[in-house]
Amino acid sequence: MKTFKPYYAVIFTSTRTEEITGYAEMSELMETLAKKQEGFISMDSARSDVGITVSYWKTLDAIKNWKQQTEHVIAQKKGIQEWYSWYQVRICKVEREYDFNK
Amino acid sequence: MKTFKPYYAVIFTSTRTEEITGYAEMSELMETLAKKQEGFISMDSARSDVGITVSYWKTLDAIKNWKQQTEHVIAQKKGIQEWYSWYQVRICKVEREYDFNK
Repeated sequence: MKTFKPYYAVIFTSTRTEEITGYAEMSELMETLAKKQEGFISMDSARSDVGITVSYWKTLDAIKNWKQQTEHVIAQKKGIQEWYSWYQVRICKVEREYDFNK
Repeated sequence: MKTFKPYYAVIFTSTRTEEITGYAEMSELMETLAKKQEGFISMDSARSDVGITVSYWKTLDAIKNWKQQTEHVIAQKKGIQEWYSWYQVRICKVEREYDFNK
């Protein structure tokens, strides 16, 4: 049996305002910077009626460090002021996983 | 301090094939049926390059029951045969959450 090492997921669910100025650039910058953080594993994003971004991290400390990262703090502030009408953040422990590949 | 009762998230990340026959109808049916399951809390879906559906459940047993639900088993089989080129399922324990509302 394959051993599984738990890791962590941050599920960020959001709805956008109509303000688009600076949003795409900031999203891209945040993705670039998150990937450079210690403990980052991967991330996925999609948007339909709601946006869902899930980022995966090795430890809770890695998540905490990313939350406090300087540019990310600025992005969070601008997100609240301008880009999001609502968001929810969930911190989760990934306990099990499986996949399918054609 | 608000007490937080942990619950569970199933993160389903996927890429689609070009086969569209029956997909939208099945998605809708699965959403309807999932919502009727004991222990179901809520779900969110979005699709861009990848699709992300996150469903939330009160217990691991509720997730197991949904995985084994008759129509859902058929949907999973058709998903593998026809609609998905790849998918990944992660079972997570939601340990913390916070939100923002404008």
